[in-house]
Amino acid sequence: MARRDPPEAFPDHPGLFDGVLAAGPVRAAVGDGSWLRAMLDAEVALARASGAPPAVVEEIDSGCRTFAGSALSAGAAGAGNPVIPLVRELRAAVSPAAARYVHRGATSQDILDTAAMLVAREALGLILIDLSAAADAAADLAEAHRDTPLAARTLLQQALPTTFGLVAAGWLTALDEAAGRLAEVRDDRLAVQLGGAAGTLSALDLSTVERFAAELGLAEPVLPWHTDRTRIADLAGALGTAAGAVAKVARDVVLYAQTEVGELAEGKPGGSSTLPHKQNPVAAISAAACAAQAPGLVATLLATMAHEHQRAAGAWHAEWQPLTALLRSTGSAVHWLATCLPALRVDARRMRANLDATGGALLAERISGALAPKVGATEAHDLVRAAVASGRPLSEAFAAHFQPAELADLLDPASYLGHAGELTDRAVRRHRERKP
Amino acid sequence: MARRDPPEAFPDHPGLFDGVLAAGPVRAAVGDGSWLRAMLDAEVALARASGAPPAVVEEIDSGCRTFAGSALSAGAAGAGNPVIPLVRELRAAVSPAAARYVHRGATSQDILDTAAMLVAREALGLILIDLSAAADAAADLAEAHRDTPLAARTLLQQALPTTFGLVAAGWLTALDEAAGRLAEVRDDRLAVQLGGAAGTLSALDLSTVERFAAELGLAEPVLPWHTDRTRIADLAGALGTAAGAVAKVARDVVLYAQTEVGELAEGKPGGSSTLPHKQNPVAAISAAACAAQAPGLVATLLATMAHEHQRAAGAWHAEWQPLTALLRSTGSAVHWLATCLPALRVDARRMRANLDATGGALLAERISGALAPKVGATEAHDLVRAAVASGRPLSEAFAAHFQPAELADLLDPASYLGHAGELTDRAVRRHRERKP
Amino acid sequence: MARRDPPEAFPDHPGLFDGVLAAGPVRAAVGDGSWLRAMLDAEVALARASGAPPAVVEEIDSGCRTFAGSALSAGAAGAGNPVIPLVRELRAAVSPAAARYVHRGATSQDILDTAAMLVAREALGLILIDLSAAADAAADLAEAHRDTPLAARTLLQQALPTTFGLVAAGWLTALDEAAGRLAEVRDDRLAVQLGGAAGTLSALDLSTVERFAAELGLAEPVLPWHTDRTRIADLAGALGTAAGAVAKVARDVVLYAQTEVGELAEGKPGGSSTLPHKQNPVAAISAAACAAQAPGLVATLLATMAHEHQRAAGAWHAEWQPLTALLRSTGSAVHWLATCLPALRVDARRMRANLDATGGALLAERISGALAPKVGATEAHDLVRAAVASGRPLSEAFAAHFQPAELADLLDPASYLGHAGELTDRAVRRHRERKP
Amino acid sequence: MARRDPPEAFPDHPGLFDGVLAAGPVRAAVGDGSWLRAMLDAEVALARASGAPPAVVEEIDSGCRTFAGSALSAGAAGAGNPVIPLVRELRAAVSPAAARYVHRGATSQDILDTAAMLVAREALGLILIDLSAAADAAADLAEAHRDTPLAARTLLQQALPTTFGLVAAGWLTALDEAAGRLAEVRDDRLAVQLGGAAGTLSALDLSTVERFAAELGLAEPVLPWHTDRTRIADLAGALGTAAGAVAKVARDVVLYAQTEVGELAEGKPGGSSTLPHKQNPVAAISAAACAAQAPGLVATLLATMAHEHQRAAGAWHAEWQPLTALLRSTGSAVHWLATCLPALRVDARRMRANLDATGGALLAERISGALAPKVGATEAHDLVRAAVASGRPLSEAFAAHFQPAELADLLDPASYLGHAGELTDRAVRRHRERKP
Repeated sequence: MARRDPPEAFPDHPGLFDGVLAAGPVRAAVGDGSWLRAMLDAEVALARASGAPPAVVEEIDSGCRTFAGSALSAGAAGAGNPVIPLVRELRAAVSPAAARYVHRGATSQDILDTAAMLVAREALGLILIDLSAAADAAADLAEAHRDTPLAARTLLQQALPTTFGLVAAGWLTALDEAAGRLAEVRDDRLAVQLGGAAGTLSALDLSTVERFAAELGLAEPVLPWHTDRTRIADLAGALGTAAGAVAKVARDVVLYAQTEVGELAEGKPGGSSTLPHKQNPVAAISAAACAAQAPGLVATLLATMAHEHQRAAGAWHAEWQPLTALLRSTGSAVHWLATCLPALRVDARRMRANLDATGGALLAERISGALAPKVGATEAHDLVRAAVASGRPLSEAFAAHFQPAELADLLDPASYLGHAGELTDRAVRRHRERKP
Repeated sequence: MARRDPPEAFPDHPGLFDGVLAAGPVRAAVGDGSWLRAMLDAEVALARASGAPPAVVEEIDSGCRTFAGSALSAGAAGAGNPVIPLVRELRAAVSPAAARYVHRGATSQDILDTAAMLVAREALGLILIDLSAAADAAADLAEAHRDTPLAARTLLQQALPTTFGLVAAGWLTALDEAAGRLAEVRDDRLAVQLGGAAGTLSALDLSTVERFAAELGLAEPVLPWHTDRTRIADLAGALGTAAGAVAKVARDVVLYAQTEVGELAEGKPGGSSTLPHKQNPVAAISAAACAAQAPGLVATLLATMAHEHQRAAGAWHAEWQPLTALLRSTGSAVHWLATCLPALRVDARRMRANLDATGGALLAERISGALAPKVGATEAHDLVRAAVASGRPLSEAFAAHFQPAELADLLDPASYLGHAGELTDRAVRRHRERKP
Repeated sequence: MARRDPPEAFPDHPGLFDGVLAAGPVRAAVGDGSWLRAMLDAEVALARASGAPPAVVEEIDSGCRTFAGSALSAGAAGAGNPVIPLVRELRAAVSPAAARYVHRGATSQDILDTAAMLVAREALGLILIDLSAAADAAADLAEAHRDTPLAARTLLQQALPTTFGLVAAGWLTALDEAAGRLAEVRDDRLAVQLGGAAGTLSALDLSTVERFAAELGLAEPVLPWHTDRTRIADLAGALGTAAGAVAKVARDVVLYAQTEVGELAEGKPGGSSTLPHKQNPVAAISAAACAAQAPGLVATLLATMAHEHQRAAGAWHAEWQPLTALLRSTGSAVHWLATCLPALRVDARRMRANLDATGGALLAERISGALAPKVGATEAHDLVRAAVASGRPLSEAFAAHFQPAELADLLDPASYLGHAGELTDRAVRRHRERKP
Repeated sequence: MARRDPPEAFPDHPGLFDGVLAAGPVRAAVGDGSWLRAMLDAEVALARASGAPPAVVEEIDSGCRTFAGSALSAGAAGAGNPVIPLVRELRAAVSPAAARYVHRGATSQDILDTAAMLVAREALGLILIDLSAAADAAADLAEAHRDTPLAARTLLQQALPTTFGLVAAGWLTALDEAAGRLAEVRDDRLAVQLGGAAGTLSALDLSTVERFAAELGLAEPVLPWHTDRTRIADLAGALGTAAGAVAKVARDVVLYAQTEVGELAEGKPGGSSTLPHKQNPVAAISAAACAAQAPGLVATLLATMAHEHQRAAGAWHAEWQPLTALLRSTGSAVHWLATCLPALRVDARRMRANLDATGGALLAERISGALAPKVGATEAHDLVRAAVASGRPLSEAFAAHFQPAELADLLDPASYLGHAGELTDRAVRRHRERKP
């Protein structure tokens, strides 16, 4: 079913902070106009599914296309939700004969929950596109830098050599796994809602649900799920995972871009007219800020799952904002990442310089192992510790113990990378295979 | 300093769900227009505080009054925050001579944080008005029903008699304590932000901060607090407490309004055209839905407190939305409660009927005590348990053991209310005293 | 690989609140003893997977069986995690020849993350057993009460008739869907961790990971996931969904068990020696309290996903407690529900009495429909509203408009249940089919 | 009232992760033994306050001193809380005459809530001691490094010079403000709970509450607060603020300790036997991990504030764990910080070297200002941008434009520190004044 333009009552105006916090197409996709459009789509699909004559469906569809919606906000206050004034307004917009088919057998929550699923599907589609773009960029980085040595850092301390390829492969795998789960939720867990006032479908044929689902391309649920919110929770959880995967990459980019590290820079860093040397990684920073919204919003959606009886006294209303905000924030975070990664500038020379800055200390373990057969394990260990503590480059400290070429090789991080290359290949291969 | 109308670029349009979830004046007070106005107020105050000549201040002030702001959203994306395009636009709107005084010595965060404090002050003022109205209504209920017996319920089971006055007094005390803390935060913790790019005030006199604070009526901080977010956290905590206090009252109203309980009803319950018997307590339900937003938003604000160095890489940007949403949601929750409580209808007859519905079981403990001197404590206890278990009214079951008047008195909940009246008086007195 | 008894250093003592908040076998399964046992299992599996000679493996295995662990808590403080002292202690417990194979090529996080997965697998197994028991009980209730009329309540107001069977079917479906997701996470997302200090497997064959996974029955990951926490997030999300599904059922049970409603009672309600009439639904209340822990813990796990570089500076350590607490709380919530539902007492008579308490108002819509052909739709509607408002039973109010039998039938809730029966059948059938 | 040793049933055993996550004396102070001791203290105080004869009080007190408590965990399961078995056990431990005075007129929640306040008071006292130690260390650092130049970093990019003294002063102010609020909550918001089963004090004199409060040194509340949880929320909020203040300092320490930055090091960094060059800032990392627990726990406590009627159905039980965990985590975070800061090693030379690493770029703004009178503002700006972009040191790039001494002074960060020194003095002075 084709989505239509959002109605005029809720035009799409970017807000003051939206430049940073509501980035990319997801903003409009979860805007009020999209929500309203989705509700109207649900009403048309319901009319069709419940067997309204074609001419009536056509009339309702037409009424939806010209629907003003200007009274909805005010009307929702007294009614408790915007569907009640929407139905009133829509019935008034069509002939009495058609009006009888509008919203037939449905309850407000049927329409609003179904609309939520349509909005979520649209947003997830956009999020998956951006996630895919970000993952592709990570895969390209992983391939291009498969063998670029980099200091592995643990607890923000240089530890051992690794490669930037493996770092990017790690980003890639996390993004792919998050995308996989989002796609599962989109395909399996987004279902129509249809039960009527008591959830018993008292005024509809049971088969209406199946037709309603087919009209909208959503799943048919086993039961009306008015107060079973596991679908919302699964959606929230998958978005939370995705936001967290983005947050990790963004944090890394910011750290690698530090003045003192300088291993990465954004393609279009934010400047400062007064501080010309600054290269602010604004895309990564914005991604981090968007992703930071998710955990609290997920918690809100989980904390309101105890919907009472057949329709909740507040817990349902409590979902609308955090669900919208979670889709928007996660989508914006992913969008910023899809902006950041393809344009990332990698400074392999700086990576190498940082590796060398500790005078070979990252390879101390290796020197110790090579020394042991010569002087004994304990003595080897002690010699190496003493050399590292002295701050003296190991190439000098152990010049007497090895042949120059042997020592140079022992101290070459590029020859101490473990299985970084093969692991990188594996992650990239897995990514390429999962593409359609 | 008088607040001006919000600029035209961000008109105040209620959103689709705002009828329920953004109730009362707080919605506009925390809207984009108010944020922008607050930023402009900060710029004018800064020009004045930093010693710009009166004519220059006048010119900047004038530029702010006619400020369009139409390019801010787009401009914020690349810049990372809306102050950068705002300053550019404002400088272009005044003479070059005045432009040099615009934003002099300040950093973006100085203006945005100060604006946040102004927005918060405005919102807290509105919230305190509504909290006061809700508390007054609770005090009136407490006085009016000081001696109205009601079944105390623990774990949703009837337990012993209490009074509705004491219930309302409990609401009152919680609302007053939440208001007290919010007022403290407003008066003591909302401070101007002014430090310049490095927080050292390198381009300003130290005394500028004091004048800036005086201009805006905010506190002067010991230090710039760019990365000390305890003020934001204290504000968040106080709002979380207030939202929780509202949630408790709303939950009670919904429970007392149940069809099977029927002790309270809202003055304007939500109806249903198809279900004419329903009396939905929509104000309480809406209050609950708004209050449910708070815990997750507080968590977001607390979780982003680790602002790095002199300016955070994302954590600062992550505050704007949850702070705004928390002020709006808490304010809306309080507004709904201020709508609900003054119009609450109390059905004292139904309260009494429900008390009697268990045939005196709520007074079993008392009967047991009165019986003990006659038959021994153990026997008394056993007799009472057996009578309650049988479901027989105690007035019948123990007719043989007491004189009719004595038994009637023992089974009269109104004579077994402990210190409910005195406690109610105390809470109301405390409330009346705290009023200015 | 068979799990062994937990070591003596961490005996299983129930805590002060564990009777309520750490119910069932999950408490011990996530206790310190189980964590330590899982770490030792990982060390033995690693020795075997990395090709240690059988006699060495046997010696390490033997050392693990008698492992004291008494120095771990103290040792973890300085080291930053308990694996460091564990390895030290274990190496000291075996011969020097075997000691060289202990923890070979691994980093602390390899062992602790793998142990976390083993603990999670054990806990999920227990949770799934209890979820299955709770769902079976819900299915039994749904079948037994397929046709038992009950007032559907929306916003805690009686709305229309439904059946208790459909209510139980709704519980069932939510529990089954939550269980399905937990099983997916257990089977697909719990993987070994093995990467060594830099995540490059620099001191191990690549194939070691596969053998390590096979030894422990966990999945083999594409890459080491030291700082890709999507597995933890997926686990957290699934637990959050399950806790929310429990919370909904528990809330319903508490509401149905209210003194004024009395439609359900627990089999072993909590009593009160002084208040003999109370029937506290303690299992449901405890389930609700346990489930309420989940959203905040999920948020903590999501908020700490931005693990820096190759090993996080605090975010990893921040997972241990909330992951343990989340498994325990969700498991306890499910256990309480598995205690509550099979013993639930259903009072069908009280359900019917409550349906009738509004004098037929729940069927007002139906009367209105039947009246319309006789008096016109508008007049019918008005007559019905007036009757409901008067509080007069509809059987009296409309005695003049229908034949007695027709009116009785119109006012019989059992004949106005929509598709409740078929929907219930469908949910139960789906449940029975998914059983192994 | 003197606290006694915790009873033997709940000995204080550190758990597997407690070395990292439950640091310092707060662990035992919030342990089960302390909770039980606090409950017993409350029972003794109640007996005294409610007028039991001195000999009876003595007997109860004596029973509490020898209280075994071994049956509490099991007993709490069926009862719903540990007070019910405690009272049973305590009554059995004294003479029948004294037994009648045990728990007289109280309900379980009176004892457990009062105990929670006693546990919180004890924990807050310890937290305040550690906060004070951390703040003192920050003050000392601020004084010692009042004039030590350091690169101010914004968005993790070097921006302008500041001093390490001002950085430490910023930590100091945040810690002091967090401590101030915690002390307020301790002194004003920790109150006894006493209301009896219905909150009406039906079996006690009203004045008992005052005496009970005086016995325990807690505040007397206006009303019983069984279902007004604003006190718990205020406590939670204050702890959340404190944890966030710690998190900020810990994050900074970790960033300053990076291998590539090296400006700070912990006094006792965590080593690694295989990686001898690592200087892991384990205290800061552990502090960060502990602090990260707080936001989710605060959210849980806020989300459960809607306690129903006179005693909640689950929300009360839901508080025990998160309140305990929040006190413990925040206390541990503060303790780690009090360990970290006094031993912090400051490398002023490295600070200076890092400042110089960008060849004067941090002073570009200043050069531009000095150049403007010579070549015009626009030309000056362009020249400086070009020089910075070229990577050439500004001392070379502008050698032709200034006298050597003038240029050296312009490029000296120590002469471009704004009011860093005065701000530092102010913060330290404020800290010294607030000390008793």
